[in-house]
Amino acid sequence: MRGKSVAVIVLSLLFVVPLNVAISQAYEPLPAIAPIPADNSLTPEKVELGKMLFFDPRLSSSDWISCATCHNPAFAFADRIPRALGHKMSEGPRNTPTILNAAFLDVQFWDGRAATLEEQALGPIQADIEMNANLNDVVAKLKNIPEYVKRFKRVFGGNDPVTPEHIAKAIAAFERTLITPNSAFDRYLRGDKQAINPDAKKGAALFDEKGCTDCHSGAAFSDSDFHTIKVPGSTDLGRYKVTKKESDKHAFRTPSLRNVELTHPYMNNGSVKTLAAAVKIMAKEALEEELSAEEIKHIVAFLKSLTGVMPELTYPILR
Amino acid sequence: MRGKSVAVIVLSLLFVVPLNVAISQAYEPLPAIAPIPADNSLTPEKVELGKMLFFDPRLSSSDWISCATCHNPAFAFADRIPRALGHKMSEGPRNTPTILNAAFLDVQFWDGRAATLEEQALGPIQADIEMNANLNDVVAKLKNIPEYVKRFKRVFGGNDPVTPEHIAKAIAAFERTLITPNSAFDRYLRGDKQAINPDAKKGAALFDEKGCTDCHSGAAFSDSDFHTIKVPGSTDLGRYKVTKKESDKHAFRTPSLRNVELTHPYMNNGSVKTLAAAVKIMAKEALEEELSAEEIKHIVAFLKSLTGVMPELTYPILR
Repeated sequence: MRGKSVAVIVLSLLFVVPLNVAISQAYEPLPAIAPIPADNSLTPEKVELGKMLFFDPRLSSSDWISCATCHNPAFAFADRIPRALGHKMSEGPRNTPTILNAAFLDVQFWDGRAATLEEQALGPIQADIEMNANLNDVVAKLKNIPEYVKRFKRVFGGNDPVTPEHIAKAIAAFERTLITPNSAFDRYLRGDKQAINPDAKKGAALFDEKGCTDCHSGAAFSDSDFHTIKVPGSTDLGRYKVTKKESDKHAFRTPSLRNVELTHPYMNNGSVKTLAAAVKIMAKEALEEELSAEEIKHIVAFLKSLTGVMPELTYPILR
Repeated sequence: MRGKSVAVIVLSLLFVVPLNVAISQAYEPLPAIAPIPADNSLTPEKVELGKMLFFDPRLSSSDWISCATCHNPAFAFADRIPRALGHKMSEGPRNTPTILNAAFLDVQFWDGRAATLEEQALGPIQADIEMNANLNDVVAKLKNIPEYVKRFKRVFGGNDPVTPEHIAKAIAAFERTLITPNSAFDRYLRGDKQAINPDAKKGAALFDEKGCTDCHSGAAFSDSDFHTIKVPGSTDLGRYKVTKKESDKHAFRTPSLRNVELTHPYMNNGSVKTLAAAVKIMAKEALEEELSAEEIKHIVAFLKSLTGVMPELTYPILR
């Protein structure tokens, strides 16, 4: 009996200890604070101004669509429809990426056409199928609202503080606060071995073994790099539109997997409804792996453990 | 010296005391709790469910427009554009009324076609130029979301709790929490004589003297009755569309004036941009009074003192 117990313990150690070691090497918890660029300090006043702008429909030509319309806080800052809708409900070609934890990515947009949150912020405001606005009109509208003029002045100083650059900086500062630390998996990585269930533990190991972590790496589970994946129904040229390099045709930036449970539907064109289907397709297309139903179940359990604590947002009162 | 002081005191009493007495008779503070109907009790679980539904774009056919799109919490639960936009950005004929303190009104909509918040709630969901949804589709969608099924069951019980009636009841319960007590004027009425400035005090007296309180009466500053006012650019038949009575042509329900500072633009067609212009027009059309610039200034100061404490709302997380 005693020999058997020892054998069980040794066998367990062989499986359990290396498994935990492997997990802690492949993964890292989400930091509590996002990287802050030297030229856009994060102050409470700037974040509050950015939040006001983010929720303000007057940043669109119709006065009806705000950043928060598509980056809906109730839907983990995405929109839960296949492809983005915008001005007059025109449908864009791509799925709205969440901006949760976007501050941890090195490139923005599916095709990486912006390097920073600051560069990204003004894009959708001006895109004709999104908010359809002219930046001069937006600046003129904001200058007509004394509350904004006061706040821009307090945050940025100067005689003419309401500028597109400052709008972008304030929104980017707000976005840097939209991070979701302390997911069950983060707590697990920090030592709480009960934080995730056995399925999720198996999934975490599988996710690394199969090679998913080759691209879904780092704190945000994205290498911020571009990869070509055959996605159902997608003819989108992706990164090629930015670089015109043949090798970038149909390539898209690796999306973060944090809160992926809440950011369905999936893929650049939103064509995949469930997490299980997305895992199956990604394994096949990116890794040439046919996963079993059991393996998919475990990976999905792991991915669900990446849902973090959502930022608790109160509505701004816009004057 | 002594005689002069006494005279000043007596003179002050003559002016100040009657003024305060008059004000306290014509006005009443907003109660801290809205009336609750016997068949729709207000429970925290029901309010939370109603809030989720209120913010959920899946109540529209496009999955993109929620109640909160037009009743935007950032804009005092209105939309700050002249006439409501909806499905595909179609423009409706009327200005979106705020739902703040709607629980204190005896009729809902500009034309009073719903008697209760429960009756009102399902209207915009189905209107083709608003959320454009079919209630059966909405119910089917919600039944597919386990979190909703669980919550409807907990709140309403029964085997089939996801029904249009229960959707309406939950939303109405949430709306009963959207009240704005403790405005400066409420604090003034309750005895804090410094809560409003001298202009607002003069405005409060004028507002009553001129007869504005004939219609803008009660805690919500609305008699919940219908009146014909000539509004710039409006050809809308208003209440007539509901009753077909000749005398109801162009009649609209008196809107609440609470938070009126934030609910611009004004009138049934949103044609009037500023509070000063709205006061001038109303005095002329409803009371045949030409107000002086000074009188308008005082009434506007008074109306601004009706801005209450906004409900502090955190975003629901929708599954």
